[in-house]
Amino acid sequence: MACDGAKKPLLSGLADPTSQRIDECRSYRRRFRHVKSAPVIEFVPSDFNGNGPIPRYESIFGGLHQSLKQVAVFLAIYLGLGTVCFYAVRDDIKGKKSNPIVDSLYFCIVTMTTVGYGDLVPDSAPVKLLACVFVFTGMLLIGLILSKAADYLVEKQEILLIKALHIHQKLDSAAFLKEIETNKVKYKSYLAIIILSVLMLVGTIFLSMVEDLDIIDAFYCVCSTITTLGYGDKSFSTGYGRMFAVFWILTGTIGLGLLFLYIAELFTENRQRALANWVLTRRMTNLDLEAADMDDDGVVGAAEFVIYKLKEMGKISQEDIALVMKEFEDLDADESGTLTASDIMAQTTQTYN
Amino acid sequence: MACDGAKKPLLSGLADPTSQRIDECRSYRRRFRHVKSAPVIEFVPSDFNGNGPIPRYESIFGGLHQSLKQVAVFLAIYLGLGTVCFYAVRDDIKGKKSNPIVDSLYFCIVTMTTVGYGDLVPDSAPVKLLACVFVFTGMLLIGLILSKAADYLVEKQEILLIKALHIHQKLDSAAFLKEIETNKVKYKSYLAIIILSVLMLVGTIFLSMVEDLDIIDAFYCVCSTITTLGYGDKSFSTGYGRMFAVFWILTGTIGLGLLFLYIAELFTENRQRALANWVLTRRMTNLDLEAADMDDDGVVGAAEFVIYKLKEMGKISQEDIALVMKEFEDLDADESGTLTASDIMAQTTQTYN
Repeated sequence: MACDGAKKPLLSGLADPTSQRIDECRSYRRRFRHVKSAPVIEFVPSDFNGNGPIPRYESIFGGLHQSLKQVAVFLAIYLGLGTVCFYAVRDDIKGKKSNPIVDSLYFCIVTMTTVGYGDLVPDSAPVKLLACVFVFTGMLLIGLILSKAADYLVEKQEILLIKALHIHQKLDSAAFLKEIETNKVKYKSYLAIIILSVLMLVGTIFLSMVEDLDIIDAFYCVCSTITTLGYGDKSFSTGYGRMFAVFWILTGTIGLGLLFLYIAELFTENRQRALANWVLTRRMTNLDLEAADMDDDGVVGAAEFVIYKLKEMGKISQEDIALVMKEFEDLDADESGTLTASDIMAQTTQTYN
Repeated sequence: MACDGAKKPLLSGLADPTSQRIDECRSYRRRFRHVKSAPVIEFVPSDFNGNGPIPRYESIFGGLHQSLKQVAVFLAIYLGLGTVCFYAVRDDIKGKKSNPIVDSLYFCIVTMTTVGYGDLVPDSAPVKLLACVFVFTGMLLIGLILSKAADYLVEKQEILLIKALHIHQKLDSAAFLKEIETNKVKYKSYLAIIILSVLMLVGTIFLSMVEDLDIIDAFYCVCSTITTLGYGDKSFSTGYGRMFAVFWILTGTIGLGLLFLYIAELFTENRQRALANWVLTRRMTNLDLEAADMDDDGVVGAAEFVIYKLKEMGKISQEDIALVMKEFEDLDADESGTLTASDIMAQTTQTYN
């Protein structure tokens, strides 16, 4: 009963399928080490209009840069609009003032990142409500930036890794890449920690030099800012200080946000790995075998086993499977339970007629 | 070549597999509508020590309550320790004071949620550093609470749905459940919006009644608090106000955090649905067929098709598949390429010998 499915070699020109069958059984183990299946999802469609013509493929990184540009445009619109609005109502904002335009932009940044020092506060009912609108939309925008920045850092990191690989060509590249793949999230966290440390150091030095805070106060203000705590007893009060603050607060709060995202990812990954380990090491029973047998042919093939175990791990759901199965049945024109070149042909003919 | 894999019906007592094969082909479409595969992951192991004895199954809700209890203990320790610490250094905290114990707890909450009104601020270097430690650990704790609260709300929601189902028994329950399943995240978002609206209303009424703020100021303070903006020009200043604030700030900030989590989930889900739709509606080619054919038997079975498409959708990765394939090869004692009852038996014997 081994390898008895090899009835119609798909793209080979062999006349006698039986001789090939024996070869196939011999090379079985070797071949299964290199499961082909679908290509890794490196390409995403540029638009998802499934009903239209087949969308052209586009690099995920092209799409990423596109969406980064989009986020940058949103941010520019938000900050531009915010600066104009708060500049227009600057007489209804009380507190320590410096240059009016810098103050408006600074107030906008302090509000959107929810740092909220309180060194500048709205002083009339309409401006208070305006600040409420800006803090909610700002939070959504920060969330959007965080998610895009997370994707972007992954890309940058991968480019760095490829460079590192070129330098260490004497090493076993496959082992090196595997090492990286396994600890991807860990390396992302390290990267975020390094970026954040640099930002904190720069902030502390700047605050002690330009804003004349002693070193403890400067560090305290840095921590209070990147966590968006913003007690407000120490903050940026000079024009130059606030110009620096605009960039530094945005990058600092986003940096810490990213780090927390990665830490959460690390925990999830560890939990999933433990679950996967448990699922894979627990003993299979006859009941499992029966449940895994999707096509009721009495045996569990490799693909059926993979689906059963991935479902047990919670990676895929019954809905996912049902959705794809529906498509499978539509494609399987001769209702044979398998897709062959003739099914594909039938599909093409159907479409062209 | 249809249904030719039915060599050894696993748990049926039929003597002639050929007659059964014909039946199988007839009932093919019907059966495939009800893919069995693995049980939905309703149960998770209580511990993941894959090397020990098979862990006993435990309801995910039991585990959830366990982890909620754990989070509650962490929170109690954090707040207890915080209150004691800030009470001990209360002379180094300046600002509007009320009852010293309430103030310490209130300061702890305002710090951990990163609201940071600034109505109470540390006034010495050691207390400033202490506040830095508390804000970072507090943020981590809030993140932990958020993730557990998200799980907990899902459970509560499911119980509500079951009750709703009992009331509407005249409706088609299957269709109703499907509707719910499809829009799960949407309903979760609605639930979060309702909870948050109630919290905002209660906060506004409380602030205008107890803290004597006019209604706009009260609403402004509510928005400034739940977003963790906390300018600090309006805040809780009375003892009773701060006692209320302790509970209200914690639930309000977590409520908004949950809402943002759900909104993010909604976006991800919509994007995934669009991608799934694109993957399923694009035309299969011979190249796809060849790539999907995991066991190189020349045809693509249902399970192979499911894996190929789910991988294309990005739901599963090559690493996931490779991991399970390794386990499959270990289990497949006779190297037949399929798992049968005899493989399972061999596994059991191996373990007992």
